[in-house]
Amino acid sequence: MPELRRDPIIGRWVIISSERGKRPSDFATEPEETSSANCPFCVGNEEKTPPEIFTVDQPDVEGRVPNTPGWQVRVVPNKFPALRIEGEMERRGVGMFDMMNGIGAHEVIIETPDHAKRLHQLVPGEIEHVVTAYRQRIVDLTKDPRFRYILVFKNEGRAAGASLAHSHSQLIATPIIPKRVTEELEGSKIYYGWKERCVFCDIIKQELAKGERVICENEKFIALAPFAPRFPFETWLLPKDHRPFFERDNDLTQLASLLGEILKRLAVTLSCPPYNFLIHNSPVNCRGSDLLAYHWHIEIMPKLTKVAGFEWGTGFYINPTRPEDAAKYLREADIS
Amino acid sequence: MPELRRDPIIGRWVIISSERGKRPSDFATEPEETSSANCPFCVGNEEKTPPEIFTVDQPDVEGRVPNTPGWQVRVVPNKFPALRIEGEMERRGVGMFDMMNGIGAHEVIIETPDHAKRLHQLVPGEIEHVVTAYRQRIVDLTKDPRFRYILVFKNEGRAAGASLAHSHSQLIATPIIPKRVTEELEGSKIYYGWKERCVFCDIIKQELAKGERVICENEKFIALAPFAPRFPFETWLLPKDHRPFFERDNDLTQLASLLGEILKRLAVTLSCPPYNFLIHNSPVNCRGSDLLAYHWHIEIMPKLTKVAGFEWGTGFYINPTRPEDAAKYLREADIS
Repeated sequence: MPELRRDPIIGRWVIISSERGKRPSDFATEPEETSSANCPFCVGNEEKTPPEIFTVDQPDVEGRVPNTPGWQVRVVPNKFPALRIEGEMERRGVGMFDMMNGIGAHEVIIETPDHAKRLHQLVPGEIEHVVTAYRQRIVDLTKDPRFRYILVFKNEGRAAGASLAHSHSQLIATPIIPKRVTEELEGSKIYYGWKERCVFCDIIKQELAKGERVICENEKFIALAPFAPRFPFETWLLPKDHRPFFERDNDLTQLASLLGEILKRLAVTLSCPPYNFLIHNSPVNCRGSDLLAYHWHIEIMPKLTKVAGFEWGTGFYINPTRPEDAAKYLREADIS
Repeated sequence: MPELRRDPIIGRWVIISSERGKRPSDFATEPEETSSANCPFCVGNEEKTPPEIFTVDQPDVEGRVPNTPGWQVRVVPNKFPALRIEGEMERRGVGMFDMMNGIGAHEVIIETPDHAKRLHQLVPGEIEHVVTAYRQRIVDLTKDPRFRYILVFKNEGRAAGASLAHSHSQLIATPIIPKRVTEELEGSKIYYGWKERCVFCDIIKQELAKGERVICENEKFIALAPFAPRFPFETWLLPKDHRPFFERDNDLTQLASLLGEILKRLAVTLSCPPYNFLIHNSPVNCRGSDLLAYHWHIEIMPKLTKVAGFEWGTGFYINPTRPEDAAKYLREADIS
């Protein structure tokens, strides 16, 4: 059973997941690239994953049998989950420390049946199926009253933490609201309390007026380089209207279109870099008008620099690229 | 001029340092290993660095001319500093955003004249010269009233962010107290307010009583695996007595001895892993009895796993090794 443990100094929780490789020699070598023949995410290999939870099937397929080909997007439980769905949380003290059981959900969203295709190479309609799967899983997992937060994220490329090459995203549901999210919620709330306006909405307005950090936009969404990015070419994608909840956003066609475009721009500009993206959304199963100050968004972080002692020690980040320059490179990328 | 920029949502400051490589192609390839012939940190190559700031000279050398051989530890300004020593801070607003000039100090502590030696291979007396250099530079930089924090850190190995192979540490002085440090200061203060005891002192007492996470100790210092580590084999080294200020600690002989021992244990157990370490110390040029609740310490983080989308999105860390297991491996390492 994995455990959640809380640092007694700054309140940071960590997951102790000893099943995932605990001996020193486990860290010695990187696992080799999976060939498509053995890839558990490839079409035809459905038996290599736990049974599927959700699929978007291909339009020409009728009466598809679960865990067989015919899917376009397929969601399965992570075979090596960081958190487990079964059990009680049992929050408790150990001397001066605090801990609880590692209850949660950890799912994999297989974005395409094709081993060779990256997310940015899918057509907008296919990307829309992926974000639809995100939404459906969030809606479904919200029904579990133990969960307080559901993070959708993607690790693309080995340097960004992907252990399998086949294009996929992940989702982790946690029984507590994570620290990093709490910071954003608190910040949004304080700004709202002061201005009676959403801080993200204000950022979007100012960026649209100035233009220098805007990368691309459509009617409903905008992609921009944030004013104070942690990483070179860090990019945020936000709904232009004030929307606290990703899962209540009905403009998924427009979202898929802009997400595909910004990923293409990053791929062209930086030669298909490894990257992480994550959806910052409001917590689930929480009430309170506070939450209405939040504005969901996607943060995309190409993995170009190394996080080292200074960043770990301070929470400061050293970013070698001005966001205004990054935005210009990305705007000018030829994605035709 | 590099800039400090503040994220308006959670108050995180970043350094925008566009001189350090801003074009997309700059990120494409890792720089090659420096051979010792061209190494700017090697003895005999003193002219390849900016003029030295401080040295510990070899005991048999008399009347050494600055920037020539004869040193054992040599401190020089970083040739590509993240922050600059000259100028005014000029804190100012840009629309809704906040920024200031990137004023600070960025120095390199060359730990040995020998290109082939790693820090853990130095004898305790040589390591004592290194920590003495840390202390001297902190004492000296504290005289600059612009600075609020001085972080000493080390990146060992390319995967941990080291760009030069020759063993060295770094020091960055910043005009604001970093977020990560503020969190620890606040946490210590809240605990002290509640218990009238130092949280680090209480941790040391509990760990010594239980033993399972203690790795090694001497009269004055203890090395332990923290209860809630972010990373596998994360190790903390703390003075056993309550001490807020590293630079006022006079037990550097004992510190050097235990630091050398724990680095040897990590090297044997994990085959000389890349790692980061950093000294968390009290801020400088700040007054207030609050600070007396803090307890300086070293955090050592072997670079064994990748930080990916989940960690960036949540501030949660997934750690695959129980600290009790890590402590056992490190205790049992044969360092004879």
